[in-house]
Amino acid sequence: MERVLAGIRPTGKLHWGNYFGAIQNWIKLQDQYECFFFIADWHSLTTEYADSSKIRGWTIELVKDLFAAGVDPEKATLFLQSQVPEHAELHLLLSMMTPLGWLERVPTYKDMQQELASKELNTYGFLGYPLLQSADILLYNAKKVPVGEDQLPHLEMTREIVRRFHFLTGKSIFVEPQPLLTPTPRVPGMDRRKMSKSFGNAIYMDDSPEEITAKAMQTLTDPARKLRSDPGNPEVCTVYDFHKLVSDKKTLEWADQGCRTAGIGCVDCKKAMAKNAIEFFKEFREKRAAWDKNDKQLFEMIAEGSKRAQKVASATLQKVREAMGIQWN
Amino acid sequence: MERVLAGIRPTGKLHWGNYFGAIQNWIKLQDQYECFFFIADWHSLTTEYADSSKIRGWTIELVKDLFAAGVDPEKATLFLQSQVPEHAELHLLLSMMTPLGWLERVPTYKDMQQELASKELNTYGFLGYPLLQSADILLYNAKKVPVGEDQLPHLEMTREIVRRFHFLTGKSIFVEPQPLLTPTPRVPGMDRRKMSKSFGNAIYMDDSPEEITAKAMQTLTDPARKLRSDPGNPEVCTVYDFHKLVSDKKTLEWADQGCRTAGIGCVDCKKAMAKNAIEFFKEFREKRAAWDKNDKQLFEMIAEGSKRAQKVASATLQKVREAMGIQWN
Repeated sequence: MERVLAGIRPTGKLHWGNYFGAIQNWIKLQDQYECFFFIADWHSLTTEYADSSKIRGWTIELVKDLFAAGVDPEKATLFLQSQVPEHAELHLLLSMMTPLGWLERVPTYKDMQQELASKELNTYGFLGYPLLQSADILLYNAKKVPVGEDQLPHLEMTREIVRRFHFLTGKSIFVEPQPLLTPTPRVPGMDRRKMSKSFGNAIYMDDSPEEITAKAMQTLTDPARKLRSDPGNPEVCTVYDFHKLVSDKKTLEWADQGCRTAGIGCVDCKKAMAKNAIEFFKEFREKRAAWDKNDKQLFEMIAEGSKRAQKVASATLQKVREAMGIQWN
Repeated sequence: MERVLAGIRPTGKLHWGNYFGAIQNWIKLQDQYECFFFIADWHSLTTEYADSSKIRGWTIELVKDLFAAGVDPEKATLFLQSQVPEHAELHLLLSMMTPLGWLERVPTYKDMQQELASKELNTYGFLGYPLLQSADILLYNAKKVPVGEDQLPHLEMTREIVRRFHFLTGKSIFVEPQPLLTPTPRVPGMDRRKMSKSFGNAIYMDDSPEEITAKAMQTLTDPARKLRSDPGNPEVCTVYDFHKLVSDKKTLEWADQGCRTAGIGCVDCKKAMAKNAIEFFKEFREKRAAWDKNDKQLFEMIAEGSKRAQKVASATLQKVREAMGIQWN
């Protein structure tokens, strides 16, 4: 089985954007690949260093969400980055041969600095972020990495680092990772901007039925449909986007036709979407609630997964040290 | 006892510049301070990454030299940086809060890039070199660090990092390290440039009596003293500089007077210097030869020292994780 690596930064509970944009795919991948999934808590420090006190709590919330969403430790290895210090050492070793220009040219570098202009991101660690990702991937010699389009340059840089390492050491020990481009739906927030915790426009996986209904009512519809009697356009309606995530084909047709003909009103449409969303995440909410009562097992499972990951990581790191001629034991 | 940290990059056998410029001082420090001395093998990668295969051998030579020169494991802890992976993790954690500008402004950064223009030093690791030094120092909470003038900005940056860490986390866990400025003699190479392995102008601690004599003969004297009958100026004579390192006061007066009055010739002066140098390093050569036959004990001592260092380092790192709120266990 080919090996896949995927990571997620802890930023708190998972919202629909996280789930439909990534995690739903993870659950499928674990049946087809040997999967290593990790919580990238060190990566969170690149933007949260000024107050890192929340990362621990976010990590716990995230792991609960992941297990409840279906990540299965029998099929995949779920681990915590900071519990595998080999990530830091490989990052350091690779840093020695990584030209600054490669990092400065990563498109997301300038983009994120602008996007998060309120934070001081002119740090050494933030610049090295894609290199830490390279270390994450290479420690497990993952052949495939599920990435979005915006992450392709990071992966290309990782392959360049592999080639440079092989050229300089004369030893071929790494696999050049390839992107696993999975078509994932675009998940807007309730206000049609990108769904994001910080925009306050997110619906969370563990939102209660009442919260889901209330948020459905707040969700933006076709702004041109001012009156109940106006026909609308589902293609510019966020509620319709949500239907596509949680409703069946029949409901989609009902909503599409009803909207275009003014046969249904937006409130009818929102209620139907909320009902389906409540059903869609029912099992998740139950499992999630059970995890809330089981911190002990949660911690054990994180420790167990991290130990399993560390075994692979430390074997790779030993090969790296040998290839560089700096092994000691 | 106050704690002192000092490191040295493995670049092969120690020459007089290393000994009189640093190691001689270490031997004194271990009687007055709780000393942690380390072989900075990861630092060597910043400039040697393109061919790191020699670092391991250089490390072994260096450790032999240090023990033979008098570093005493009963008094000081001698360890190998790469055997204490906590250095990599603290480096990573501190990188998150270290502004790029602080690193770019370190004066040695541009200087060394120019000095070593034949190497591609425009790497992420080379830029982070002073930050790795900060991690080295802070892991041991060293109060004093013996440094040369050129290293003062590194130490100042380390103190800035301490203050930033304390400010951001609200926890005061680090000691602000102070320089231990010890007047050390200027040690020129045989050709009067800086003594350096790469200039081919170095006299090594373990040079044989024959090698010492031969190198004494090659050493530059006052270039204005062309004839045996010309009086010379010891102040511009490299042989006289060497006398100051290895000869007693009486010999120094003899050489000074003899040179200024043309009472002695340069060859007489060189022979006397060589004789004293041979005597000065006699005990060293004997001990060094013994270490050459005792690799097993050498490796054990490195492992033992590194284990001792790791105990201190991992306790500090745990405090760092707690202060940042990212501790897990």
